[in-house]
Amino acid sequence: MTRHYNFCAGPAALPTAVLERAQREMLDYQGRGLSVMEMSHRSDEFIAIAKQAEADLRELMAIPDNYRVLFLQGGASMQFAMLPMNLLGRGGSANFIQTGIWGKKALAEAKRLGFDCHVAGESESNGHTEVPPRSSLSVNDDAAYLHYTANETIGGLEFDYTPTCSRADGVEVPLVCDMSSSILSGPTSVADFGIIYAGAQKNIGPAGLTLVIVREDLLGNAVAKTPTLFDYQALAEAESMVNTPPTYAWYLSGLVFDWLKNDVGGLKAMDALNQRKADKLYRAIDESGFYSNPIARHNRSRMNVPFVLADSALDKAFLSEAEAAGLLNLKGHRSVGGMRASLYNAVPEAAVDALIAFMHDFEQRKG
Amino acid sequence: MTRHYNFCAGPAALPTAVLERAQREMLDYQGRGLSVMEMSHRSDEFIAIAKQAEADLRELMAIPDNYRVLFLQGGASMQFAMLPMNLLGRGGSANFIQTGIWGKKALAEAKRLGFDCHVAGESESNGHTEVPPRSSLSVNDDAAYLHYTANETIGGLEFDYTPTCSRADGVEVPLVCDMSSSILSGPTSVADFGIIYAGAQKNIGPAGLTLVIVREDLLGNAVAKTPTLFDYQALAEAESMVNTPPTYAWYLSGLVFDWLKNDVGGLKAMDALNQRKADKLYRAIDESGFYSNPIARHNRSRMNVPFVLADSALDKAFLSEAEAAGLLNLKGHRSVGGMRASLYNAVPEAAVDALIAFMHDFEQRKG
Repeated sequence: MTRHYNFCAGPAALPTAVLERAQREMLDYQGRGLSVMEMSHRSDEFIAIAKQAEADLRELMAIPDNYRVLFLQGGASMQFAMLPMNLLGRGGSANFIQTGIWGKKALAEAKRLGFDCHVAGESESNGHTEVPPRSSLSVNDDAAYLHYTANETIGGLEFDYTPTCSRADGVEVPLVCDMSSSILSGPTSVADFGIIYAGAQKNIGPAGLTLVIVREDLLGNAVAKTPTLFDYQALAEAESMVNTPPTYAWYLSGLVFDWLKNDVGGLKAMDALNQRKADKLYRAIDESGFYSNPIARHNRSRMNVPFVLADSALDKAFLSEAEAAGLLNLKGHRSVGGMRASLYNAVPEAAVDALIAFMHDFEQRKG
Repeated sequence: MTRHYNFCAGPAALPTAVLERAQREMLDYQGRGLSVMEMSHRSDEFIAIAKQAEADLRELMAIPDNYRVLFLQGGASMQFAMLPMNLLGRGGSANFIQTGIWGKKALAEAKRLGFDCHVAGESESNGHTEVPPRSSLSVNDDAAYLHYTANETIGGLEFDYTPTCSRADGVEVPLVCDMSSSILSGPTSVADFGIIYAGAQKNIGPAGLTLVIVREDLLGNAVAKTPTLFDYQALAEAESMVNTPPTYAWYLSGLVFDWLKNDVGGLKAMDALNQRKADKLYRAIDESGFYSNPIARHNRSRMNVPFVLADSALDKAFLSEAEAAGLLNLKGHRSVGGMRASLYNAVPEAAVDALIAFMHDFEQRKG
């Protein structure tokens, strides 16, 4: 059994300790004679697993009592449709800050569904290399919520502030955050947000689970004819079990939360480690003269580090030699090319050290 | 490590051989140095896994080339909304045969979304103990499709015929079948159907995956403002990867298809085994005088066998003694009470033998 270093942007590396525990429990969960996969979602055993996962997440993120945590399906992309359907039942418009591909998709889906949309800020003008300054943000007069992407996974652009906003009439606009690729990478002040949502397959667990953390006053505002499984109110009332939830993904996410709490020591410790990992890699890039990253320093993503080689003709050799050295999935997204190293929570510091050593060696030989 | 006999209605038992293989491959898939859970869904490795799963399913069910196979999220319940949104874009009404709780839910969701609905047949009048005869079915003049539930998981009522139907004007109505709890239990003539769909957590794999087998001429008819992830056409064009699919559930389902093909020997062999298992248990019930099942013999479900004890005061003792004997999850659905033994593909004949022996012994002692 070999475990290589996996820099995949998602589905991404999981902690080896979590996979080992899942492996041990695969056929017989704690002496019950069956796998977690084979349990009724309404059984006492599974309800205990589900509740423990939520309790650990609440503790890790210090989620206030007036927020509900939903364990859903469909990925963050399904939220792109669910958000306006749940938040615009009393009218108003959806506001967006556009800083890259994922934010664009969220806006496009709200438009497709016929909702009023307004762009409250954007980084298109600087090629998505720097997020718009707080002072430039402007929500419109009937803004019902403001949506943004905390970390753009493809561009590697991360907000260095929380873009809370008020309308001209002084009403504070609920902030909705796609936190798919940065959730749990460090502490978050949940009370600043109306809704935080995230696909699981980066810092939470396997693909097929989506977390939605929603402030209670935002429930019950769905537009007419919203499908039952799109309605946050119905999902919250049924504790995410209107129908069978993705039980095994929920269980694995619980193992990740447990690992974060007890092995890592919580989100402050995770934050410090993530900062160290990212600082090291960006420093190696900046000092090289061969590798480069275009993002403004204060907006560089800690989770996704895109970089290009001085000579793109060397890309193929870089990737195949990296793979041979046990450094997997460094290819950049097909829409941008180049390289991308994703440094999610489960990527150990030793992986970053090995990557830096490889990059240095490659530059020496080919640069 | 102990494996008990698991009669859960879903999420249900998986083949032990499948779980053992998944366990072996959990941390390192075939020497690649990572788990299937940690692979990009667009990687060569995962695409190969996904394509093999589809190819094996196509072979098992002999799915004709003019059908697309979609690997989706949301459960069969999400299809209750997706079906009318995809099939009524050119107008017309949704027709339903009502034979139990799941069929009712499908109708209720289509109504909730504001679609024209018509009941083409029902078994309410006989307490859902016998499906309506073919001659009684009547679709309305603008029927765009006819929906039914091949096997009602809770009631234990199964169709013994395929209710293909034509309108008064002679047009054959596409038949849409919720096959969640009977898919792969034996051969199916796919060409009789417009759409077959099924939640995975009974005969396919873990919860969190939904199969939709759709005839190509039914694609591209979605109503305006259908969310992207609800649109069969968009999902088919992207080969179920508009966004990240539930990769691990897809992989596990592939292992189940492989098991069905190579360990069981295909769906005819599975069919014979399932018939033998069900026949045995119903015979034991009928011969007992202590246990009973209310369903008309020709409509008795092979997958879900509900039964009651002559004295319901003994239910608690029956369940706790069964569990102590390693016979798990025999409690009937909360809406109907009594007992239910689900005999899905992964439940071995030895489990049925053990259950019958236990039932006989319990009756001798307490009956």
